[in-house]
Amino acid sequence: MKYLRHISSLLFITILGFVFSGWNPPDEGMFPLSEIGGLNLKEAGLKIEVSDIYNPGGTSLIDALVKVGGCTGSFVSDEGLILTNHHCAFGYVAAASTVENNYLENGFIAGSQEKEIPAEGLTCLITQSYEDVSERVLAAADGKEGVERINAISDARKAIIKEAEQEVGIKAEVAEMFVGKSYVLFRYQTILDVRLVYIPPRSLGEFGGETDNWVWPRHTGDFSFLRAYVSKDGKPAKYSKDNVPFEPKKFISVNPNGVKEEDFVFMLGYPGRTFRNMPAEFLRYHEEVFLPFIQQLYASLIKKYEELGSADPALALQLASTIKGLANTEKNFRGKMLGMRRIDLTAKKFEEEKAMKEFIASDKDMAAKYEGLFESIKEAYKTHFELTGKQRTAGVFANFMGSVDLVMFMNGYMKSKTLPDEKRDKIFRAGNESELMDEVNKLFANLNREVDVQTFTTLVENAGKYPDMRSWSVIEAFFEHIDSKKSAASFYEMLFDESELLKKDSFIEVMKMSPEDYDNFDDPMLKYYRAFKKESDDISNKVKEADGRLNVLLAKYTAVKAEFQQKKFIPDANSTLRLTYGYIKGYTPADATYYKPKTTISGLIDKGKTGNPDYKLYKALEEEYLKGNFGRYYDEELEDLPVAMLYNMDTTGGNSGSPVLDATGRLIGLNFDRAFEATINDYAWSQAYSRSIGVDIRFILWVVEKVGKADNLIKELGV
Amino acid sequence: MKYLRHISSLLFITILGFVFSGWNPPDEGMFPLSEIGGLNLKEAGLKIEVSDIYNPGGTSLIDALVKVGGCTGSFVSDEGLILTNHHCAFGYVAAASTVENNYLENGFIAGSQEKEIPAEGLTCLITQSYEDVSERVLAAADGKEGVERINAISDARKAIIKEAEQEVGIKAEVAEMFVGKSYVLFRYQTILDVRLVYIPPRSLGEFGGETDNWVWPRHTGDFSFLRAYVSKDGKPAKYSKDNVPFEPKKFISVNPNGVKEEDFVFMLGYPGRTFRNMPAEFLRYHEEVFLPFIQQLYASLIKKYEELGSADPALALQLASTIKGLANTEKNFRGKMLGMRRIDLTAKKFEEEKAMKEFIASDKDMAAKYEGLFESIKEAYKTHFELTGKQRTAGVFANFMGSVDLVMFMNGYMKSKTLPDEKRDKIFRAGNESELMDEVNKLFANLNREVDVQTFTTLVENAGKYPDMRSWSVIEAFFEHIDSKKSAASFYEMLFDESELLKKDSFIEVMKMSPEDYDNFDDPMLKYYRAFKKESDDISNKVKEADGRLNVLLAKYTAVKAEFQQKKFIPDANSTLRLTYGYIKGYTPADATYYKPKTTISGLIDKGKTGNPDYKLYKALEEEYLKGNFGRYYDEELEDLPVAMLYNMDTTGGNSGSPVLDATGRLIGLNFDRAFEATINDYAWSQAYSRSIGVDIRFILWVVEKVGKADNLIKELGV
Repeated sequence: MKYLRHISSLLFITILGFVFSGWNPPDEGMFPLSEIGGLNLKEAGLKIEVSDIYNPGGTSLIDALVKVGGCTGSFVSDEGLILTNHHCAFGYVAAASTVENNYLENGFIAGSQEKEIPAEGLTCLITQSYEDVSERVLAAADGKEGVERINAISDARKAIIKEAEQEVGIKAEVAEMFVGKSYVLFRYQTILDVRLVYIPPRSLGEFGGETDNWVWPRHTGDFSFLRAYVSKDGKPAKYSKDNVPFEPKKFISVNPNGVKEEDFVFMLGYPGRTFRNMPAEFLRYHEEVFLPFIQQLYASLIKKYEELGSADPALALQLASTIKGLANTEKNFRGKMLGMRRIDLTAKKFEEEKAMKEFIASDKDMAAKYEGLFESIKEAYKTHFELTGKQRTAGVFANFMGSVDLVMFMNGYMKSKTLPDEKRDKIFRAGNESELMDEVNKLFANLNREVDVQTFTTLVENAGKYPDMRSWSVIEAFFEHIDSKKSAASFYEMLFDESELLKKDSFIEVMKMSPEDYDNFDDPMLKYYRAFKKESDDISNKVKEADGRLNVLLAKYTAVKAEFQQKKFIPDANSTLRLTYGYIKGYTPADATYYKPKTTISGLIDKGKTGNPDYKLYKALEEEYLKGNFGRYYDEELEDLPVAMLYNMDTTGGNSGSPVLDATGRLIGLNFDRAFEATINDYAWSQAYSRSIGVDIRFILWVVEKVGKADNLIKELGV
Repeated sequence: MKYLRHISSLLFITILGFVFSGWNPPDEGMFPLSEIGGLNLKEAGLKIEVSDIYNPGGTSLIDALVKVGGCTGSFVSDEGLILTNHHCAFGYVAAASTVENNYLENGFIAGSQEKEIPAEGLTCLITQSYEDVSERVLAAADGKEGVERINAISDARKAIIKEAEQEVGIKAEVAEMFVGKSYVLFRYQTILDVRLVYIPPRSLGEFGGETDNWVWPRHTGDFSFLRAYVSKDGKPAKYSKDNVPFEPKKFISVNPNGVKEEDFVFMLGYPGRTFRNMPAEFLRYHEEVFLPFIQQLYASLIKKYEELGSADPALALQLASTIKGLANTEKNFRGKMLGMRRIDLTAKKFEEEKAMKEFIASDKDMAAKYEGLFESIKEAYKTHFELTGKQRTAGVFANFMGSVDLVMFMNGYMKSKTLPDEKRDKIFRAGNESELMDEVNKLFANLNREVDVQTFTTLVENAGKYPDMRSWSVIEAFFEHIDSKKSAASFYEMLFDESELLKKDSFIEVMKMSPEDYDNFDDPMLKYYRAFKKESDDISNKVKEADGRLNVLLAKYTAVKAEFQQKKFIPDANSTLRLTYGYIKGYTPADATYYKPKTTISGLIDKGKTGNPDYKLYKALEEEYLKGNFGRYYDEELEDLPVAMLYNMDTTGGNSGSPVLDATGRLIGLNFDRAFEATINDYAWSQAYSRSIGVDIRFILWVVEKVGKADNLIKELGV
């Protein structure tokens, strides 16, 4: 009850009202809280009141929503039980696993509350209130340009957050709704003690692996149950045995009967990022430079890491999650590029802007106000076109190599020496010497000469494809030789073998240096890192400068677009709470092919017969399948047990774990992915190809009841 | 008229009558000529008389069928115009192409008969008559066992063929209908002068390349028009300017309106080989040994050849057709293995045989007659289980390397020296010295040290995976070293560099040797080849011995199976003329997926946007597409121009180029492939997954008329 007490005292500002009528789903629809009241959801098929979904001042479904890291979750019992995706809990399950108790491989079923184990490091957030702070943010930026403007906005946002977080137990963020135009402060209630309740084994939670990622038809049991705990007096508190289950203001009821094709559904969640309000030049930049550069670089890294792993199983295991992350982006970007080409998206956006230009030219005042807008936008993006390759190369250099991690750690440590103890990062403070050494040991355990040499070689090889990169100071040297590959590898091997920072003993010796001596320390790895860092900082500044210009230009662009279209539009996704709705619906991904919107356990077992290791079958599940005991979860129409479902709701990354709700607001599925064709959702939504994927609640219930035998959970879910 | 004059004088023996009633398509159906009369085709949907299809003594559709190499074709005009697949004409088009006139890349449109160019080396055959010769063949084998039996059967078949071919212009074959049980003599009229008439460019004829091979949905314009020519007096004759177009007894009319989903269709053609009548142990042998061994070995070779090609574009071109052939088999076998696993085919076949055993045991006479049959079959296949790896390794060794080609050529040349001139192969006879040198030059032009070294290394690496192969005398040596790879490569490099047979000058010197000196010639390559050849001959003999035993056993197996099933069944495909029928039909290849039975030109253009080089668009076609001028070929239901079609007829390799006919016997499509799931057709047919793929005749006509502007052809086709 108490967690949303502020919501009634706020001024509810419509950020930008989407003019909507009729029952058909709109072109796109990740509606912010402020828009929900204005939607004609009942005509679309909703059978409860809109105020049952969002009810400022009262209780509604949004009170059952939880932000779980970069994902979404929802309360499904009055004892703080949270349902989210397996892939959202993955890292915490991995951290809780040991060789003896490998919960990642074998799954984890607590059986009772006492046996639930902490998901260390996981904080959950519950949206409590929001407030438009555009005026204050923009006032701070007024008259400022370029880097100065960006810094001013950033500082203003930080200040607002700091103020809001004075309140105990509150986490705040200031979200940018429209670039340079509107900013909203969100306050979140925090949950600091989250525990693992029911985690299926990886073979089910990740069934299909990379093969099925971004793919329909899907058979992944991508669900996990967690539980929120608070102190006995109901306050957010870190893990303690004495904590008690959190009682949410609202929880979502489960509908064990599921839904049918064409049924109305809706979803609440925290979609991460979309780019639909961005200008054509931005799309061109993404299509021509950003997406292909990253896709190719990541594909090369994946290939290299797989080669390394194929010769060394232990290394393969170590590289698995890096490869998984790279592959996830690589495939997504491949899908986006393909989708953009197929529908000529960028060209269409330029066509639209051509009409906008004519619209501007047709009116004297407008012409004066927006003169040169598109040219200035184009000019500003030049920086991105030019610097993306270098920026992303520097990004991989800084983030994918154990050797660089060690240098950065040492740099941080040396910088901390110049600060008073209380201003240092916690790990560098007095009294934390043993944690410090643990961290050093961890960094050295992650260090792998071959991985770093191959990563560096890949960066150089990739840079070699771009003329401007070949002449880049930090890369250039490797192309003076005929065999650039060998040269890059031998160079990095030299750094490795000659640096004092990459041998633990000498690293610990270097830690004893004074910051001044360290500044003058002539170490080859440190020297090369500094050269790269200088380049990287220089690039960041140039990009920031362009972003400063764009901050003003895009605000104008949004304004003129709204005038031109004679309608307002909703802000791009930005990890704040949104509603989307639609229908259970199949689609045609390609000529002569139709995808139905439901998959079955027979299809799951069928995949298991292919021999593809991504389709390894969960033995207990296979056994229950063979018994054919699907009970109440059997779907008469499918003549099978449903596994996954497809719908035309508008989602993006961050909607992972979002509850899929039926017309009466009951839980019938759990969102976890999009179809391959829907990867371009981030740029444009379409009724033809935008489809998202969820686990059918009946499959989750069947697994929990029949395979996991977790009757306590079935009871708690009230089924 | 005259070409089938013998048919009425033959005794028409029902080879094995398939008991068939009702209008539903049977489980399987590649019906030999002898069965056509007994089919209830009219109930199935046929709107002409069965005698219009096959009419011994008269004229019927089968008179319009042509065997085009390993493919099928059909006459589509009274001037000998043949329609077949692009991939069937491929080799002849390639041979006719030069750098200046690259018909393979650019296509070839003659425009008029005078401009048609010869498809050198292509002979076409027209089925003229058939005759059961089982008695004669089996009499020759009577009482013989093992190798002796196989040789006796082979000799009897050759003698019958020789007799039949005494008649001028006749080509004969004796086909094995059921192993060790029934043999049929087929007589074919030959056409020796075949010319290229209309060949689409590769980008259309091969559209989809390896990506789409064995795949639906498909958009390949896999068609070509050829023309049969004979001498002025109507006799088969080699190419001559004076030859005239052949007037077929019958040609097939085109139906430019196409067919709809669920429409009845039938097909005539020369399906190559199926294994449906084989015992379970044979399936187990294929599933466990034959298919995976070849699939893995070919996959390794493809990978190696692609690596070689990626560094050397000229070599890539040289290796392209080898890779294509390997990939075609590799993907087909992958499909078969997957399909067998998915439906547990081998286990089902063993179940069936278990019932057969019980049936045998239930009757004293039967039990006495067939005692130990299944055990003996199992025993005989042991040889195949044991020797396949070695046999196939020896096969690749003998067929994929230019160096081995040279040794074999020299061996042939030396052997010919021991024979009188008239008994030598033509190229080795006196007066053919310049052709001989051309051949030697060609063999040296094809010689590539790196390809052979890598092929050999791949064979050795692959052999290393099998314990019995590691200890094989011709392979063993390479595993004595720690680094077997290097050892195999350096060994073959040594052979290459030290052999006198792989340098042209010394090769020509060696040719001057006496056969005796050659026998004692101490050349490392020759020595290694002889060791391999000895092993290979030894294996062939052992397999032949087992096949001799199987020849008797499988005849018994067929007999008891017919008794058990209380029905007769049709013989496996064996490249003889067959009829199959069914319906235009989509299917469900996987959970939640439905494939419709028609593709469209929009789908073709869509694939072109993916950037996959296998989907390179034929420019002229794209231009016509953009004009949207589909004329009479537009399909109102599809709202598009149809490209390919899917049907549940029973086909296999050899049915390439088969005419797809509507209920009135008119041409509505051209068969060219099967869907991936239908690759297991060769072992078992199923209504659920057996689908074959054809080009829609409307697409062919549209291309010929609108893209190729070949009005003369449209006129000749009578459209």
